[in-house]
Amino acid sequence: MTRPTDPPPPVLPDWVVSAWLNTPAPITLDSLRGRVVLLHTFQMLCPGCVAYGLPQAERVCQAFPASELAVVGLHTVFEHHAVMTVEALRAFIHEYRWSFPIGVDAPGTPGGPSRTMTRYGLRGTPSSLVLDRQGRVRLHHFGRMDDLVLGALLGRLISIPDGPEDGDETSAVHAPHVACSEATVCETAGCRTEAGAW
Amino acid sequence: MTRPTDPPPPVLPDWVVSAWLNTPAPITLDSLRGRVVLLHTFQMLCPGCVAYGLPQAERVCQAFPASELAVVGLHTVFEHHAVMTVEALRAFIHEYRWSFPIGVDAPGTPGGPSRTMTRYGLRGTPSSLVLDRQGRVRLHHFGRMDDLVLGALLGRLISIPDGPEDGDETSAVHAPHVACSEATVCETAGCRTEAGAW
Amino acid sequence: MTRPTDPPPPVLPDWVVSAWLNTPAPITLDSLRGRVVLLHTFQMLCPGCVAYGLPQAERVCQAFPASELAVVGLHTVFEHHAVMTVEALRAFIHEYRWSFPIGVDAPGTPGGPSRTMTRYGLRGTPSSLVLDRQGRVRLHHFGRMDDLVLGALLGRLISIPDGPEDGDETSAVHAPHVACSEATVCETAGCRTEAGAW
Amino acid sequence: MTRPTDPPPPVLPDWVVSAWLNTPAPITLDSLRGRVVLLHTFQMLCPGCVAYGLPQAERVCQAFPASELAVVGLHTVFEHHAVMTVEALRAFIHEYRWSFPIGVDAPGTPGGPSRTMTRYGLRGTPSSLVLDRQGRVRLHHFGRMDDLVLGALLGRLISIPDGPEDGDETSAVHAPHVACSEATVCETAGCRTEAGAW
Repeated sequence: MTRPTDPPPPVLPDWVVSAWLNTPAPITLDSLRGRVVLLHTFQMLCPGCVAYGLPQAERVCQAFPASELAVVGLHTVFEHHAVMTVEALRAFIHEYRWSFPIGVDAPGTPGGPSRTMTRYGLRGTPSSLVLDRQGRVRLHHFGRMDDLVLGALLGRLISIPDGPEDGDETSAVHAPHVACSEATVCETAGCRTEAGAW
Repeated sequence: MTRPTDPPPPVLPDWVVSAWLNTPAPITLDSLRGRVVLLHTFQMLCPGCVAYGLPQAERVCQAFPASELAVVGLHTVFEHHAVMTVEALRAFIHEYRWSFPIGVDAPGTPGGPSRTMTRYGLRGTPSSLVLDRQGRVRLHHFGRMDDLVLGALLGRLISIPDGPEDGDETSAVHAPHVACSEATVCETAGCRTEAGAW
Repeated sequence: MTRPTDPPPPVLPDWVVSAWLNTPAPITLDSLRGRVVLLHTFQMLCPGCVAYGLPQAERVCQAFPASELAVVGLHTVFEHHAVMTVEALRAFIHEYRWSFPIGVDAPGTPGGPSRTMTRYGLRGTPSSLVLDRQGRVRLHHFGRMDDLVLGALLGRLISIPDGPEDGDETSAVHAPHVACSEATVCETAGCRTEAGAW
Repeated sequence: MTRPTDPPPPVLPDWVVSAWLNTPAPITLDSLRGRVVLLHTFQMLCPGCVAYGLPQAERVCQAFPASELAVVGLHTVFEHHAVMTVEALRAFIHEYRWSFPIGVDAPGTPGGPSRTMTRYGLRGTPSSLVLDRQGRVRLHHFGRMDDLVLGALLGRLISIPDGPEDGDETSAVHAPHVACSEATVCETAGCRTEAGAW
């Protein structure tokens, strides 16, 4: 699918986040270099996000080891700004038990989309972006997405090792710990759940 | 996950099939060498197969291009032999519109499990086996399986190219056409459905 | 909904059944007089029956007390006659654990619809018929049906007592026991599961 | 189920509502006398309410004619008071397209359950109360509830006409219009969707 003359996929510029929840420290895209990243952008009052997008992000978080893949949420508000506050988001996260780090996208112009939402050219919520180990955008999807298709993409990207031209492998080692509770492992004997392995 | 001292995964011996449905010609495992294979073993009167296993095999068939992955079904009867006949299976396939090739596992001892079921050491139905491009068993799973986890394994195996020690790449070219109607493609711009690409 | 000039709903003529499964003795419509009846007609190789119709009939069977409502299945074959035999049906019932009585509709002309299917004017499978306590057809529905809507109709019909002109209340007492394992009861304190009460 | 010595079910006292949404005028329980009532109490940040309770209330609203049954929602906040405001609730209703009237339960003691929640003795959200045409509590259920079971109860209560001792039938005529878009009708010929009939 990649032809010799294809331009390389764009490297995603960093997000602009005004607050972080579910993580002891702010997270930069650079700090995730070396791992595959699923960035799930949502609004807490978006029905499709609540019904499909966020549960899928949570499942991804459970199914892959944190050493290989990081799931990050981004609250990209473009409507109902007055009520989708950080405080409301915190209650929402608490009630739904989302376990991955969630950033609050910095506000844009009053009443308009938030800053990273504009920077990334998102069409709406939910939107999912998948980055490879070098931070290049491999998927930019608006709306619902099939688990099988997303799983295949993530599995494919995880199996591509970090290239030497992109720095040594130690990047992941120093990354902030972005982990979910458990990872599922599939090998010859079947599938099992295990933390930190794949 | 693979350590230097791990034994190599076993290469699956060929199946023993008494009849083929949904394909113009019999299929051997050798003819699929060069592609990843999902072998779904089932019984037409097994509720878990009808509710979960077979629909998942069909989704896999739709989600991956035939040039990279082959889905094959195997009817492994170990109970109710008198009524799970080839003729009954044909009606079942017709009504449920399964689109992948399905082999009828050769009968074993009267009243017992079918021959390939015994040969592969299957514990029951549904059982799924995933083979890499060299025909080595990478997953042997009994029961229900998560789409995300299965997708990740298939994506990972597809991304590993056929090694030179396993013969040249022409094997896939001459393989019987084992294809479903459509494949879903995910790249930078999002996911789309397309035949024969990935 | 019933206006003074509406003709009375038709009383359903009896079925013509060649064999009964899941019941110690044949069941006639007359023997069910005094109870509301859900008659679910299906084919074992009909995907919609397996996915929606039969599970709904089973849920109805569990949700209502046998003293008020009887669920009866009818295997109305109109295709694949050679493989949808009584023996195959018996294996199917065993594997899916259907708990209500199921009659095998008597064969019609070779290759055509079964006899009761023609007599009742069924358009296909799944079809559901609901009869009131006097055996009059209150619903004749082809295809999928909403649980809430079906529940409302059954609740409404159950609440209408058997009229004196239709014989005394002893009819139900002598009816063959057509029961499922448990019934769910709803009253002021909430819903609970209980056998034989409502 | 009702024995001669059973005490009559309690008549529900009126709610204490500080604001109404989705209705042109406030609604009192008295104004609904003559119709069956489903009162669905919820919180907008309660996952079970969003996933099960509110969609079920909406389905009930669609399945029954407004002349027979009224669906009323009540936002009973007992946690996260600062963010579950009327303004937030308005955005929530807009995004999820709930079509039935929703009252905001009057605040109780600071940080505690709202007033009607305490008055009705609700254990949490979602809780559903079903009232008969005389306003008597026929169901008080906390948590998820089966559609078939709820439908049966509603159908049963709807079929019981308003007694003469409870006032003439004109009560419903003067009731505020509490209606959803469409009602589903089941009769001999099958089920169909229709506004205002049953």
